[in-house]
Amino acid sequence: MTPDHRPRFRDIGMGIGVLSPGNLNAITDVPGVSVGQVTVSSGHGQLRAGEGPARTGVTVILPHQGNLFRERVPAAVHVFNGFGKCMGLEQVAELGQLETPIGLTSTLCVGRVADALVSHAIRENAEIGISLPTVNPFVGECSDAWLNDIQGRHVGETEVMRAIDGATQGAVDEGSVGAGTGMSAYGFKGGIGTSSRVISPDLGGWTVGVLVLANFGRPRDLRIDGVPVGRLLDEERDIEPERGSIMMIVGTDAPCTDRILGRIARRAVLGMARTGSMGGHGSGDVVVAFSASPLVRMPLEADGWTLRQEIVAEHGIRGASDAIDALFAATVEATEEAILNALFKATTVVGRDGHVREAIPVDNVVRILRDAGRL
Amino acid sequence: MTPDHRPRFRDIGMGIGVLSPGNLNAITDVPGVSVGQVTVSSGHGQLRAGEGPARTGVTVILPHQGNLFRERVPAAVHVFNGFGKCMGLEQVAELGQLETPIGLTSTLCVGRVADALVSHAIRENAEIGISLPTVNPFVGECSDAWLNDIQGRHVGETEVMRAIDGATQGAVDEGSVGAGTGMSAYGFKGGIGTSSRVISPDLGGWTVGVLVLANFGRPRDLRIDGVPVGRLLDEERDIEPERGSIMMIVGTDAPCTDRILGRIARRAVLGMARTGSMGGHGSGDVVVAFSASPLVRMPLEADGWTLRQEIVAEHGIRGASDAIDALFAATVEATEEAILNALFKATTVVGRDGHVREAIPVDNVVRILRDAGRL
Amino acid sequence: MTPDHRPRFRDIGMGIGVLSPGNLNAITDVPGVSVGQVTVSSGHGQLRAGEGPARTGVTVILPHQGNLFRERVPAAVHVFNGFGKCMGLEQVAELGQLETPIGLTSTLCVGRVADALVSHAIRENAEIGISLPTVNPFVGECSDAWLNDIQGRHVGETEVMRAIDGATQGAVDEGSVGAGTGMSAYGFKGGIGTSSRVISPDLGGWTVGVLVLANFGRPRDLRIDGVPVGRLLDEERDIEPERGSIMMIVGTDAPCTDRILGRIARRAVLGMARTGSMGGHGSGDVVVAFSASPLVRMPLEADGWTLRQEIVAEHGIRGASDAIDALFAATVEATEEAILNALFKATTVVGRDGHVREAIPVDNVVRILRDAGRL
Amino acid sequence: MTPDHRPRFRDIGMGIGVLSPGNLNAITDVPGVSVGQVTVSSGHGQLRAGEGPARTGVTVILPHQGNLFRERVPAAVHVFNGFGKCMGLEQVAELGQLETPIGLTSTLCVGRVADALVSHAIRENAEIGISLPTVNPFVGECSDAWLNDIQGRHVGETEVMRAIDGATQGAVDEGSVGAGTGMSAYGFKGGIGTSSRVISPDLGGWTVGVLVLANFGRPRDLRIDGVPVGRLLDEERDIEPERGSIMMIVGTDAPCTDRILGRIARRAVLGMARTGSMGGHGSGDVVVAFSASPLVRMPLEADGWTLRQEIVAEHGIRGASDAIDALFAATVEATEEAILNALFKATTVVGRDGHVREAIPVDNVVRILRDAGRL
Repeated sequence: MTPDHRPRFRDIGMGIGVLSPGNLNAITDVPGVSVGQVTVSSGHGQLRAGEGPARTGVTVILPHQGNLFRERVPAAVHVFNGFGKCMGLEQVAELGQLETPIGLTSTLCVGRVADALVSHAIRENAEIGISLPTVNPFVGECSDAWLNDIQGRHVGETEVMRAIDGATQGAVDEGSVGAGTGMSAYGFKGGIGTSSRVISPDLGGWTVGVLVLANFGRPRDLRIDGVPVGRLLDEERDIEPERGSIMMIVGTDAPCTDRILGRIARRAVLGMARTGSMGGHGSGDVVVAFSASPLVRMPLEADGWTLRQEIVAEHGIRGASDAIDALFAATVEATEEAILNALFKATTVVGRDGHVREAIPVDNVVRILRDAGRL
Repeated sequence: MTPDHRPRFRDIGMGIGVLSPGNLNAITDVPGVSVGQVTVSSGHGQLRAGEGPARTGVTVILPHQGNLFRERVPAAVHVFNGFGKCMGLEQVAELGQLETPIGLTSTLCVGRVADALVSHAIRENAEIGISLPTVNPFVGECSDAWLNDIQGRHVGETEVMRAIDGATQGAVDEGSVGAGTGMSAYGFKGGIGTSSRVISPDLGGWTVGVLVLANFGRPRDLRIDGVPVGRLLDEERDIEPERGSIMMIVGTDAPCTDRILGRIARRAVLGMARTGSMGGHGSGDVVVAFSASPLVRMPLEADGWTLRQEIVAEHGIRGASDAIDALFAATVEATEEAILNALFKATTVVGRDGHVREAIPVDNVVRILRDAGRL
Repeated sequence: MTPDHRPRFRDIGMGIGVLSPGNLNAITDVPGVSVGQVTVSSGHGQLRAGEGPARTGVTVILPHQGNLFRERVPAAVHVFNGFGKCMGLEQVAELGQLETPIGLTSTLCVGRVADALVSHAIRENAEIGISLPTVNPFVGECSDAWLNDIQGRHVGETEVMRAIDGATQGAVDEGSVGAGTGMSAYGFKGGIGTSSRVISPDLGGWTVGVLVLANFGRPRDLRIDGVPVGRLLDEERDIEPERGSIMMIVGTDAPCTDRILGRIARRAVLGMARTGSMGGHGSGDVVVAFSASPLVRMPLEADGWTLRQEIVAEHGIRGASDAIDALFAATVEATEEAILNALFKATTVVGRDGHVREAIPVDNVVRILRDAGRL
Repeated sequence: MTPDHRPRFRDIGMGIGVLSPGNLNAITDVPGVSVGQVTVSSGHGQLRAGEGPARTGVTVILPHQGNLFRERVPAAVHVFNGFGKCMGLEQVAELGQLETPIGLTSTLCVGRVADALVSHAIRENAEIGISLPTVNPFVGECSDAWLNDIQGRHVGETEVMRAIDGATQGAVDEGSVGAGTGMSAYGFKGGIGTSSRVISPDLGGWTVGVLVLANFGRPRDLRIDGVPVGRLLDEERDIEPERGSIMMIVGTDAPCTDRILGRIARRAVLGMARTGSMGGHGSGDVVVAFSASPLVRMPLEADGWTLRQEIVAEHGIRGASDAIDALFAATVEATEEAILNALFKATTVVGRDGHVREAIPVDNVVRILRDAGRL
């Protein structure tokens, strides 16, 4: 079944939660946000370490279409499980700002992708490190070691530049693409998934979009809208330790402060929990949340930084705590559905040493959900 | 229906997860752990602020039956949402040690309960603050303001001492008792709940017990084992903002370091998430985890502190990462079920100004779960 | 020598750093900030635990003269050493807001002072916990156990209310007063100290004020403006372990976000370091920083909370990073000098069991500083 | 003046603090620790961005001489100012373990150095990412942009491998070498500096070694042993904003838990403070501390991780809290002196665009210290 023939979760006639998705049901529903992906897949058969086969890639998320280095966005990180190898978190935590595209990739490619993001920032801002400050590249990762020649580090500057240059604000490819090419989730093929929610107009009418790189979860733990699908799938599957990871990217056009974004980031974990994960020891689970609202961008002035960090949100909303709760709920719902989309859209991948990671059998899942009265 | 006639969740014929509970399915299944509770309920009718009616209380958890000040237990805290008024967290975070019983109570009583825990520590250790160091009382709280004359602060030293002196290692009263007397959860009466899990012998065979003070969640968000019970309960309920809180106490006899306990504490949030909460803005959600294992106690020596912080766990377990994952799973499952026990066992309470918080209608819940094929 | 006859540090003809103090060289130079103190000193001779002698007290800092619960100030905490028993930090960390006076007191009195702050908030806002949310009292502490009958907990609601009601925006008593009554620093009598700095008009012209409760430091470690006074004081002093603590309160009228305040709070530790402390194991070192600027207050609206967190600072300042650096430098200098003021102004106190904590011998210190070419 | 002719700080006849340094007065006094450095210096004159001139390099610290990936060391990080671009901190924070050499380099080279550390780990452990887990490279950085063609990223795998392969346990080159080649501190040439302290035998007799990459501080703020040397140096120097950074590496053979190491890491900041820094806004200040003791190494077993985290330290020490305080004091003193060594040993460097960063004039400094009565 090609990706085009596999349904997204919502295509089977279900939704997650009570809020409505945006038009694309994707992080790109947040105005200004674009996503670019490059898939690296080559070679077959036995692993020749450092050479192939390659089953990997890179996914980039751009919070807006301008110059990110000169127009930073407020951002926050939440590390639920720090057993991971990301880069760039400290500065986001200190300053509450993001100044490059977010790169997602294979664990051992983080250095190369960070280096490529530096190159990109220099390409856009020739004076970086000369008359301008240096730049903080932000990279998240999961391990695709089971399918991919991870030692080969097959993602570098070429792939990152192509991903950024090809980024679009339209629909987002999901599943076994980009950084998701070699990832697994709940014992099935995982990878990239996305979803969005729009909150009520009287609470601001904002959109929350989530994109995940899903590479986590033990087979029997999978829940879909609360139904214990993992336990009910009839095929017997090995119980593998949960040694993957999940990267969760949350964007919104709500003009949030970095403080609210930090609180939003923590709620993404609740969405992850709903899909059944126990938060495995070896699973590096990291969230980054940003506001794409033009109202809260922070210019890189001549002096480098500014006390201005946010602008008052005055949208006649009914109550700010209600608006915050709505943003939280949107985050939880969109995260849960983004993970399901990663599972639904991912196609079976045969990787190194003949390792096969099968796509989740959608028909069986539909049957289980129907038996549970959800369809 | 009296509490004795209300079932615990498992009594209706369901369980949560795949691991087995301990004998009591309570935090007291962890050897050495005891729980004591004092309920304060007096007066009726209109609120006379500072006088009554009182619908409140205190619950204490003792990690072991010795002198806690002289035999500290490794412990860790996790603050998912810091919108709360606990006391004692900083020192636990700095030293990884707990040195008093854990007190749970009404928000505005934290000062009085902390003061009472100081009195208790002095009673047990007459030289505190003379030839011995001072003591760090640990108190968690939720707001029972909707039912209780919270300004009256009806819990003080008398109640705390009675709770400690009456603490037992047996079955734990649940629902509208002790600190849970005036609490609400998911729009129904909430309060105290507990559950436990035993992990596989080849992974150590340890017990994880959880006790919650449940005072959180919006009515329509409630999930029971994934079934959207909140949405399916036919009665219409007001959508109230989630302004409660939840305190989650995790104990285990696994000889864990404080580091592992910190990671366990974070997993309790996953159990909370499974019951449907969005992690509301106003809900102060805090976890404390401790090890009751005699192997890892830290004596207060003449010199006050010691470099010794933990003892190697050599139990012939199959693999430490598997053991950690098992402890995580046990925590998630027991937290989820403890919250359900709080809901199931809580009885309807009529509080100040005639406010009524009804017990969850167990029959309707059973019907919904049966319709969903879970019973 | 009475306190009136003891000089403040600057009275001997030296200053700390390069910035100028405000008029009072006190935290009360920050417009709107007031300080109130009640000293509790009674009894003499042998300790009768729980009865006396009392050498303790309470100090309160009010960020502004309005209703703090209804007009919260942005605030941040930094815990350098969490070996302490404060209360109220979690909510400040989560929301970036302070909503009560800051109380400072003896370690074992924290519960009682927190309870008194609740009473005070209720007195000012009769609907707390009824139609309004509950309140988060903020209390810091150090141990006065060496001089004081600490078990007696001689500070309660009466003393706290008197301190708040008597708070003034004028000069601040220093040394062995209020919470400082029984405190020791660097082997000498310590206690309350304060200082302030005004930054350059072209960087905003704002004031930073610091008040410390100094109860830390080993005798030989003391440095005054870098001069190793502790080592040079001729009298032999016992080397006692550094088991005190220091509370550092930083206020400013710069319209700072809570993020900047968090960064300011961390710089107070640098000022502490300059006085020579090694950051002793047993010394709970905590900083709280707030902005008293009316521009950044956060109203408690009908809805409880608001997305509005700060207001753009547009003061024609030369560069925001320069302004931040100036606020940092002001914090470091004022913290250092506040500690010295605590030492200089503190008078000898004879406490329980005839324990004597002597005031630092100013004449000898002056001689040492003169020999070092600083005077 | 060549580096060989410049004195270390202690060579002028002064010391810092009261504890004795180890034989080399270097981090390599800690048994097992080695340091390797590669200096990259080529080209002159006008900057051709991406080509040169290069004034940069890499410094690596190896906690022991075995296989770090298979024999991890307990470690902890402290981020005083997160305005930096390090890599690898999250996993150290989560697991309390370090599993690669620590790399220090130029800000924009972090990606390349991280990638090289991955290559090195693979070279030593061919099964990484195949039958073994992936690896977490640890890289710290400061910006050498003022002297160096930082865009050129002149440090890569070749330099890192040479640095690791050439690492020795002997004396450490200081000043304008390795990662320190292009760094500045307090307006003078900065770079690499190191120092050590040995604590009393009855407190364990352990060694604490510190290595810094010093690239921070405003000219007029410099203090040497408390003497305001920066203000007293007669030459007028531009007041530049403090936009550098400092990386502080603390090693010890005390068999510390990661918790104690975290507390040690925080004390390094006190040593930094003593040299006069205000903790500038733009200065990313990061500490990593590790124990090189064979007693506390954590083997990578077949199962990947282990519950074993440390082994009791039983050395008959007088009191553990005294031992902890001694480790803290050693850290403060060694950090202060390491910074001074970086300044003293650094030679003048002429970099890109003719930028000249002069070495501190030792003769003038000696005169100032003599006038202050310290020599």
